[in-house]
This record gives sequence, structure tokens and C-alpha cells, in this order.
Amino acid sequence: MKAALIQQSPAADRDTSLSTTEKAIRKVAAAGTDLVLLCELHTGPYFCQTENPVHFDRAEPIPGPTTERLGRLAAELGMVIVASLFERRTEGLCHNTAVVLERDGTIAGRYRKMHIPDDPGYYEKYYFAPGDLGFTPIDTSVGRLGILICWDQWFPEAARLMALAGADLLLYPTAIGWDPADDTGERERQLEAWITVQRGHAIANGLPLLACNRTGFEPDPDGRSAGIRFWGNSFACGPQGEMLARAGAEHPENLMVELAPERSTRVRRTWPFLRDRRIDAYGDLLRLYRNDQ
Amino acid sequence: MKAALIQQSPAADRDTSLSTTEKAIRKVAAAGTDLVLLCELHTGPYFCQTENPVHFDRAEPIPGPTTERLGRLAAELGMVIVASLFERRTEGLCHNTAVVLERDGTIAGRYRKMHIPDDPGYYEKYYFAPGDLGFTPIDTSVGRLGILICWDQWFPEAARLMALAGADLLLYPTAIGWDPADDTGERERQLEAWITVQRGHAIANGLPLLACNRTGFEPDPDGRSAGIRFWGNSFACGPQGEMLARAGAEHPENLMVELAPERSTRVRRTWPFLRDRRIDAYGDLLRLYRNDQ
Repeated sequence: MKAALIQQSPAADRDTSLSTTEKAIRKVAAAGTDLVLLCELHTGPYFCQTENPVHFDRAEPIPGPTTERLGRLAAELGMVIVASLFERRTEGLCHNTAVVLERDGTIAGRYRKMHIPDDPGYYEKYYFAPGDLGFTPIDTSVGRLGILICWDQWFPEAARLMALAGADLLLYPTAIGWDPADDTGERERQLEAWITVQRGHAIANGLPLLACNRTGFEPDPDGRSAGIRFWGNSFACGPQGEMLARAGAEHPENLMVELAPERSTRVRRTWPFLRDRRIDAYGDLLRLYRNDQ
Repeated sequence: MKAALIQQSPAADRDTSLSTTEKAIRKVAAAGTDLVLLCELHTGPYFCQTENPVHFDRAEPIPGPTTERLGRLAAELGMVIVASLFERRTEGLCHNTAVVLERDGTIAGRYRKMHIPDDPGYYEKYYFAPGDLGFTPIDTSVGRLGILICWDQWFPEAARLMALAGADLLLYPTAIGWDPADDTGERERQLEAWITVQRGHAIANGLPLLACNRTGFEPDPDGRSAGIRFWGNSFACGPQGEMLARAGAEHPENLMVELAPERSTRVRRTWPFLRDRRIDAYGDLLRLYRNDQ
């Protein structure tokens, strides 16, 4: 199974962004791609650097204009596309949502981001209600996809729940970057931590993993911070966390990778972690903390 | 706080093994060590390569001869020692247990390995009953220690539960190595996965982590396999998974590392993962699988 990660620097408006995305998808289709993963909120700038109600104009329903356009493309090219949209469920209720377009152009399913960050430069709790669909993988013609989004990638619980629900593959549309005010050491540690924690999920669950990130600099519209330099480095790893492909930091890139599902079978037989989970002793995972009972 | 990991090739008998350990501990004490972590089952060979009732003679009570000897040493040198023993609780009921000796020589607490492997060469389910003390960190004069053992290191749940119970530090006595029958690629992937998944726990929980492994070759007493080449590589990483110190593969080594608790504070404020856990949606973590309801 051939997958492609479209590492992108989205433009200011939806049409231009989607035209660039479409060009990239046509290119990887020509190389025989079965599955395309796009980066987080790829239809425009990462607007969450500021809290401004004007950006709710960017939200769109699902199905809606973007899923129609990408659905037509998926059908024409006969591939599965994982898109990442600002979903307007109703006025005043929006989500950060990944949506899967099947080879026939239909919507196979959606995942609404469950863990929502709120940190300087990433004011997502203002825009997105936490997902209410749980950690539910989506069945497609290329397998059962365990789609999670960005901040989710720091939570081992999310990857584990997807694995327990039978996911064949973990996928993360992402928008993460450096604060230009941080020193080089901190930037290196952050990038390395982002890659390492995700490789850890692949290992702990015996599953391959795809992470597709934005690239390029986006200024803070309020001019309060130094903006975000999205760090690219989209990557694919196998079920032992082994790196299969990795993009650079600075430029848009179509990262191609061939996945071999039988690798997961072999790895899970060598390391049968799922057999030995102590579910009798995991109850406190359902508490925020247990030091202050 | 200065910690030392004693990467060791234990001898055939307890006295010789402990004498070597004691020499190493005196050496690191002279360098101002506050906390010593020993490798898994450091009082003798890794007997779990075979299922043979004779090895139950190696089990000992806690308190018992080893905790008495190491307790005296801890008191004399004024340091905390984390040992790893084959605990005989009663005849026919043994555990793989880590025990903490306090600076005053008393036993601060014990952790009984919760996840027990059973794989070719690691027949631990024959020797050890799964732990019944839960994932409970141990309070000491050098902080609250989240001690886990070897196979536990592949389970993100274990590290998370220790963090939720207020652990300041994760520690893993370990016995893991290469099957000499595996090719170089597989050996590299396994070692890298072992390091990566643990760095992932450090990152996901914003905690430093120490992993102390055995080194050296131990033959299969039954001659059915090619034995185990314990891969050393004991290491310490910080709360962003950043590598602080790492031993080689081939030889016994005293690995010294200085830990700065204020790093965890800073990292958890930058990445406040604990704030955003979706405990309302984690219920299925208490099931073995949920694809076959």
C-alpha cells in the first residue's frame, strides 16, 4: 500500500490552498498512491494564533465545499484522501475535524479532535469544541484508519484506544512549529520529542504511523509574538518505530512511503504487548490525578 | 540530585554478584551519588531462559539477605538504592520485585512487576506471579520514585499511572538483549525501539527517566536457543525525552547523571498534557480489546 503525505504551506484563502493541494495529489496519484494524508487545517493559515471571531467565517459544514471538491478528486484518481477541516456543526459549535474521502468520492467517516490545546500561539479551545465521537477508527478500502489530530499525538491513551478498536494504521494531520524566540537547544528538543513520542505510540501498539505537518513561517496577526515557524519533518514509521521516510523542515514536500501490513503481524508476534495489559489495575487512568484523593 | 546506574554482568552466585555491585556502589558514592539504580535480577544469571524448578532456590524473602546487605551499604554511604530481586513471598508464590533501601538502611517500599512477559528466552510467567501492589510510587528522601520493571517499559499505561500518582522520576531495572540468531537490522530496530518507547513515556508525562540494563552474554542452559546477548545501553533522559547519559552495549559501566527537578516544572508548563486528558472518553482502556464486543 502506497501512502503520500502532503507537507504544505497553505495560502491565505481556501481556493488557492486547495488548488495547490490538488496539484500535489495529482502528482502523487501518478506515482500510484492509494492513500493521501494532508496536514492540519490545510485550507488556509493556522488562524489559532489569535482569538478573533472573524475566523469563524473559515468554518464549513461537512459535507461542504471542501469535501465535495476533494471527494470528486478522490473518485477521479481512485484514492483515499484524509483531509483536515474547520468544521461548522452549527453556528457557535465548531470542531477541528479530519474527514476521509473514499475512492468512490463518498465520505467514509470523520474524526473530531478529542484533545484540544490552549497555549500561547495555539488558542484552539476558543475555536474548537472537544470531539464527541470518541477514539473510533474509520473503515476504508485501504484499511481501518486510526486518525488523530496534532495535540492528540502527545497522549498515549489516544493511540492505544485506536489500536484496541482495531486500527491498522495511525495518522496525524498536524500543525506544529517553533517559536522563533526559543533558542536552538529548545527547538531541537521539541522537534525530537514530537517525533519520539509518536514513534513510541507505533512501538507500544505495533502499528505503522503517518504524521503530516505544515511547513513555513506564519506571523502572529496581533504582532504580540514572533509567530510560528512550522517545522515540517512529516514522517512515516513502521510498527517498531523504525523511520521509513521523513521530510525536511523548510519546504513543501510530497513524502511517499510504501507500507507492508504483514510487518505489524510479525512485530506483534515478537512483542505481544496487548496480551499482557493489566486492565484490572488501570482504573486510575480514568482520573485526572490520584495524588490528591 | 546525582543518580548512578550500575550496568552489570551478574555472576553465577549471589555473593559474588553482590560483591561486584558493592564495589561499584562504593565507587559512585565517592562521586557524590544520592540514588543508585541496579539492573533487573542483579544477584545472579537471568534464569528465566529456561523453566526449571531448581531456580526457585534463588528466590529470597524481603526483608532478607540481600536487602540486609544493601540496607547496611545504603546506611553507611547515605544513599538510596533501588535493587531488583526474585522475591519469595511464600513457597509457590514468587514475584519479580524492586525494593528501595533508604539512606538510613530501612526498606522504603517495594514494587512488584505488574506486566509479566512470556516469550522464547523470557519465560517469566513460570517464575513470577503478576504484581498485586498496583502502580504505586515510593516516597524517598530523593523524591517519589515511580519504579517499574523491564517488560513494564513497553506499556504507556504503567508510566502514566505512576505520573498520575505523583512520581517525580521513572526508573526501570531491566534485563533485555539480542537474540544472536536475529540479523543486524532486527537487532538495531529492537534496541532503538526500547530506547524510543521509554523516551516517549518521559515526554508524555514530563518526567525524567532512568533505565538500567544488564550487559554480557548468557547462554541458554537448555542449549535450545542461541542465548541472550544483553544489550546494555542503560540510559537517562529528561522530561522532554532528551538523552542525558547513555552507556555502551558491551561492558559493565557506572553511568552517572545529574537530574534537575526544576526541568520537569518548566516542561510541564510548556506542554500541559495532564490538563487535557479526556478521562470521559478513556473507558475502553479498561478492556483488552474493543473490536469484538
